[in-house]
Amino acid sequence: MFVKNRVKIRTRLYSHMHVFYQPDITLPFITLSEEESKHCVRVLRLQNGDKIFLADGNGKLATAQITDNHPKKCVLQIVSVEQFLREESSGRQYYLHIMIAPTKNMERVEWFIEKATEVGIDEITFIETENSERNKVNMDRCLKIAISAMKQSKQWYLPKINELKSLKEIIQQPPTGAKYVAWCQADKTQLFSNMLDKQEKYFTVLIGPEGDFTTQEINACLQSGFVPVSFGATILRTETAALYGVMAIKALHS
Amino acid sequence: MFVKNRVKIRTRLYSHMHVFYQPDITLPFITLSEEESKHCVRVLRLQNGDKIFLADGNGKLATAQITDNHPKKCVLQIVSVEQFLREESSGRQYYLHIMIAPTKNMERVEWFIEKATEVGIDEITFIETENSERNKVNMDRCLKIAISAMKQSKQWYLPKINELKSLKEIIQQPPTGAKYVAWCQADKTQLFSNMLDKQEKYFTVLIGPEGDFTTQEINACLQSGFVPVSFGATILRTETAALYGVMAIKALHS
Repeated sequence: MFVKNRVKIRTRLYSHMHVFYQPDITLPFITLSEEESKHCVRVLRLQNGDKIFLADGNGKLATAQITDNHPKKCVLQIVSVEQFLREESSGRQYYLHIMIAPTKNMERVEWFIEKATEVGIDEITFIETENSERNKVNMDRCLKIAISAMKQSKQWYLPKINELKSLKEIIQQPPTGAKYVAWCQADKTQLFSNMLDKQEKYFTVLIGPEGDFTTQEINACLQSGFVPVSFGATILRTETAALYGVMAIKALHS
Repeated sequence: MFVKNRVKIRTRLYSHMHVFYQPDITLPFITLSEEESKHCVRVLRLQNGDKIFLADGNGKLATAQITDNHPKKCVLQIVSVEQFLREESSGRQYYLHIMIAPTKNMERVEWFIEKATEVGIDEITFIETENSERNKVNMDRCLKIAISAMKQSKQWYLPKINELKSLKEIIQQPPTGAKYVAWCQADKTQLFSNMLDKQEKYFTVLIGPEGDFTTQEINACLQSGFVPVSFGATILRTETAALYGVMAIKALHS
């Protein structure tokens, strides 16, 4: 309860303060990256003496005061530092890992990263399957999108985004906790909402490519402990299915 | 059960057939619109004798054969017509109406329309509030997006999309069924997932602008029977909150 209240107070208090991403927060002074400096000084036109937040993406939130508003290397002095627990930051009591086959049109996956981060996700792994339409992902771009969504939604943990991995590797070393694989053949599976183990705290959901998993892939998933689930009667795009996994768990687990 | 099975069979059988939108399906011949003709003949290069589906967006699905593959006015002969119930088409047992303040960047609302249609929504109304950032919406574009999402997700009902309406009007004539208003002040509200009436079959969810509703607006909503709900501790963008409403109900009501 303490956790939830603190989160609620935080979101209300902090919702009008500017947040910047700073992977390592060192005392007493910080120099922002060129990009963040530009945003701080040129875009937001913040002045010396103005206060901002620095988030390290790992639960640390610092209040800092601008001491030199240089447009390329803005210098800040740390005023105070607070460390949030993952549960405090997200308001969630579970860890969620989505494994997704990236779509041909990368914008769709990028949209998923933004939305999933806003709603709450801890880890994303890109997977390579037989019917995959893409075997290359721009990780820097994915990270940027996650950072901006983290800041925008006022959370202090950045989801871990993993490089492309083959489904075979994942099946050989399956994650712990509850594992689900979204399968388009709705008549052969139960609804996700009925299958979700609400007592579990670690969830992994596998989302296939537009062309779905092959029967061999599905069988291999089942053998390594993934539970096949249906996301309903309508046909969802890959990124929509992935986000449904995120939002359905949030709705069902709270 | 019969309904669900039929939906499951349909989605499997029809998932590889081309679907075209044809608001009024007349026997025995149909001439596609210029846009749909172009898509059919130029893009998909379909020939005379090829079969396609025609959906009227109101549950009617016709199988038709191309008799004249004219690139601007393609002519088809209706082979058979089937009428689906709303529940068969959507696999849902409820009616969902989302009322949303359109975002400054229209792409975000358009994205919501696409995703909500895929997952399942019956009606969308754009609302004008005190903090609204937009008071004009391109309805033709919204309709196009809904049509394409309806076809892509293999559903035969098109959501009804209503013109911009002031929140005052809505409050004066509130919809029937369960009414919820998403309120950013998480500490003053209960979680949506705990407040949802799972026995209800008609749902309306009000989603405010980025700047949230004013206190007066919220009070007026409460007086006209809307239940204030929280979508969790993290701050969601307007279109993310609206989609969470759609996906959370789908997860909780099945």
